[in-house]
Amino acid sequence: MAPRRPEPAATDTFGAVTELAPFVSFLSDYGTRDEFVGVCKAVMLELAPHLQFVDITHEVAPFDVRGGALTLVRAIQYLPSGIVLAVVDPGVGTERRAIAVEVENGVLIGPDNGLLAPSVAMLGGASRVFALDNAEYQLPAPGGTFAGRDVMAPAAGHLAAGVPIEELGSEADPNSLVPGLLPLPQEGDDGRIDGEVLWVDRFGNCQLNIDPDMFIARAIAPGDGVELHIGAEIRRARWVDTYASARPAELVLVTDSYGLVSIALDRRSAAEYLNAAIGTPVVVVPPDLPGALAAGEVPVRLGPPEGSRPAESRPERNREEGSP
Amino acid sequence: MAPRRPEPAATDTFGAVTELAPFVSFLSDYGTRDEFVGVCKAVMLELAPHLQFVDITHEVAPFDVRGGALTLVRAIQYLPSGIVLAVVDPGVGTERRAIAVEVENGVLIGPDNGLLAPSVAMLGGASRVFALDNAEYQLPAPGGTFAGRDVMAPAAGHLAAGVPIEELGSEADPNSLVPGLLPLPQEGDDGRIDGEVLWVDRFGNCQLNIDPDMFIARAIAPGDGVELHIGAEIRRARWVDTYASARPAELVLVTDSYGLVSIALDRRSAAEYLNAAIGTPVVVVPPDLPGALAAGEVPVRLGPPEGSRPAESRPERNREEGSP
Amino acid sequence: MAPRRPEPAATDTFGAVTELAPFVSFLSDYGTRDEFVGVCKAVMLELAPHLQFVDITHEVAPFDVRGGALTLVRAIQYLPSGIVLAVVDPGVGTERRAIAVEVENGVLIGPDNGLLAPSVAMLGGASRVFALDNAEYQLPAPGGTFAGRDVMAPAAGHLAAGVPIEELGSEADPNSLVPGLLPLPQEGDDGRIDGEVLWVDRFGNCQLNIDPDMFIARAIAPGDGVELHIGAEIRRARWVDTYASARPAELVLVTDSYGLVSIALDRRSAAEYLNAAIGTPVVVVPPDLPGALAAGEVPVRLGPPEGSRPAESRPERNREEGSP
Repeated sequence: MAPRRPEPAATDTFGAVTELAPFVSFLSDYGTRDEFVGVCKAVMLELAPHLQFVDITHEVAPFDVRGGALTLVRAIQYLPSGIVLAVVDPGVGTERRAIAVEVENGVLIGPDNGLLAPSVAMLGGASRVFALDNAEYQLPAPGGTFAGRDVMAPAAGHLAAGVPIEELGSEADPNSLVPGLLPLPQEGDDGRIDGEVLWVDRFGNCQLNIDPDMFIARAIAPGDGVELHIGAEIRRARWVDTYASARPAELVLVTDSYGLVSIALDRRSAAEYLNAAIGTPVVVVPPDLPGALAAGEVPVRLGPPEGSRPAESRPERNREEGSP
Repeated sequence: MAPRRPEPAATDTFGAVTELAPFVSFLSDYGTRDEFVGVCKAVMLELAPHLQFVDITHEVAPFDVRGGALTLVRAIQYLPSGIVLAVVDPGVGTERRAIAVEVENGVLIGPDNGLLAPSVAMLGGASRVFALDNAEYQLPAPGGTFAGRDVMAPAAGHLAAGVPIEELGSEADPNSLVPGLLPLPQEGDDGRIDGEVLWVDRFGNCQLNIDPDMFIARAIAPGDGVELHIGAEIRRARWVDTYASARPAELVLVTDSYGLVSIALDRRSAAEYLNAAIGTPVVVVPPDLPGALAAGEVPVRLGPPEGSRPAESRPERNREEGSP
Repeated sequence: MAPRRPEPAATDTFGAVTELAPFVSFLSDYGTRDEFVGVCKAVMLELAPHLQFVDITHEVAPFDVRGGALTLVRAIQYLPSGIVLAVVDPGVGTERRAIAVEVENGVLIGPDNGLLAPSVAMLGGASRVFALDNAEYQLPAPGGTFAGRDVMAPAAGHLAAGVPIEELGSEADPNSLVPGLLPLPQEGDDGRIDGEVLWVDRFGNCQLNIDPDMFIARAIAPGDGVELHIGAEIRRARWVDTYASARPAELVLVTDSYGLVSIALDRRSAAEYLNAAIGTPVVVVPPDLPGALAAGEVPVRLGPPEGSRPAESRPERNREEGSP
């Protein structure tokens, strides 16, 4: 599950009763305020006491399947071989089946709602898929079913304890799975790139769904400035090759540590500065394009009205606002 | 400690030096911003390096002994055999003694303030109780005592390392322990049930202190609507047997995964929609009761005043407001 | 790494392939919402699957090197022998080199920005220091370097797997490290102590950079009251020797569990009550000093203006406000 890592270590050092490595990497939207995560781990440990957990995060926004899928796919290539348990609850009244997806070095367990799909694809695709419908490997619930605790955690625990995956339920066609939907940027004939914010991390960096190769294809070179249309605002940002090239308080574009273009601001939250969030549209206009602000494109500023200043002066002013 | 689980796994796979399983399930009101939880774990690992931790939660509201007790009792039947460490600090000036409570498959450690009581009862009661008053098994503090770090974590670590429980301090009478106080619903002669919100989970589901058997005793059948008096509001909710039976945006009552009645709303926070929180009184009025809104019971609505509409029409209208 | 602990336990019970104990104590400003912490752990486990983690905290405020250094130094003496990984990101454009600092029973890994310095000092100083500049022991990044994931976690994993520390990079002079800057209190000739709030914990206790020995040197005895100037407010607080001596709702000073003077309030947040935060100046005026409020020192109250009341009555009134 970690194709790019140097020296993939042997992971059967615990003398495990199964060939699956004894790790469960766990992602959910359960939060950490309630006991959900702990109870799921307890259920797994009861079945496979040798298990070790890696918490990816449990703070996926409630019901945010796309956000969870993006988080998982950012992490997936680094996770240890073994089991991945990913639960983003699809909400009342929309019960998806739970599935176990066999990949080369492990098994991914989660709901069939697109959450796992991008990660499975990055790992080379599913070899087999099983619906977790064998009640023998589930916990009886005192009331309504809590799928993480009663269906998915027991499946992970039984797998880790050596139960073959085909025991967990009926086989399903990998092509029948709900696909993951990731937004692709649109590239205009005039060189513009219509992207959006994929992720705002804790530090306020805004990862875009834009590959740096798109910049290279437009002959944008390190040091060049581009225009960013973010919501109704227009900003200038410089494309730099390392964070260290950023000047204090300068809005920059960098290739982030995941290989995508991110908007960053030195020691401050770019997201807060730009009033941007996940899903905010971001248009990148290369520097050699004729005036990005044609007639009819007067930007609506987020700040207070500027009184008597003529409207046509605003774009120019905005362009100089790269640093706050 | 897990009477309902299938195939209780052997838990001595680490060749532990004691018969106690090598797990510490840990609940506290320490939060995760400070280093409290990590330091307590470090203290335990220093004494028993083979220990594995299961974090139940550390986000019990500060000083909220009842909330902590309810969280622990929801989790307890799922926790692995071994040690449970539960700390909800009783606050300055009210130092409770710390205790170790021996139960069938393990030991619960915590303050004697009612935090452990419901869980001990669910596990079949205490066989022996010891006050953690033997200073030999405590850490010297550089200043005031931090009971989790200096008294309770060392007790857990020493127990896990094979120290007999009776070494940790003087034996106490189980009947001398501070009891846990859980709110019971009141059942009126006319069929009403006066309950309250026990727990609001991350998704906004509101668990009530009401058992579904009370509904069955009132001949409320799946699909029936009941009236809910929540604070000053009146709402209609349908009693459904599974979440999947809920219609989009419909307020429903379900037996939750803990076996109690919960108020839920499809993919939205019922708590937010109802302005409900832990402790909010909730009255359930069965459908066959004569008009729940008798004279003198005009509901005080939370919304803006409704102008000239006659007051007696409001209840009817409220009843239709099941979906927002 | 734990000089004060009783019975330092043997930590090589896993038959580790190295003499380093198999623990990584991990502190960062990564938060838990993103996947950063999980990915760093995954990278370490891939290299050293026997590792156990102790999370100190990951909620150091972003870029807050001083706050992180203080948290680490509060925890350090309790951490198990082995590796400490501490990452507080110095922000865009200010890349510090990453270092590994060898101490008596372990290795501390982190940026060279003062984060590790106080802890290294408390552990007796560095024996050797290495810059993590050997790319052979780093992960290739798909884009910009994520120092925790690509440099520091691999260093920790390789160390735990038996790679000698000198392989990780070039040796550095311990005296060339960026020092940690901790604020010292100033002691006036008249007995006053000018300190500040070092830390506000989850419960609102305010730890000061004041040692209780300074109180003893001023003949302040348990039970005595002192005057606190906190920001523009003046409060009276009693110096008590245990939390249990505090009266309900009384503002007290206690020696906290780290051996420093803290301001506390029974079951309430002293920080909220006093409107105090990390860095808030706090002046302690001993009880035998002549009137702390000389001419020209009229306190500026935070509350609304008090109209016609004569200014000279305010101090007296403030002094009585110890309990809210």
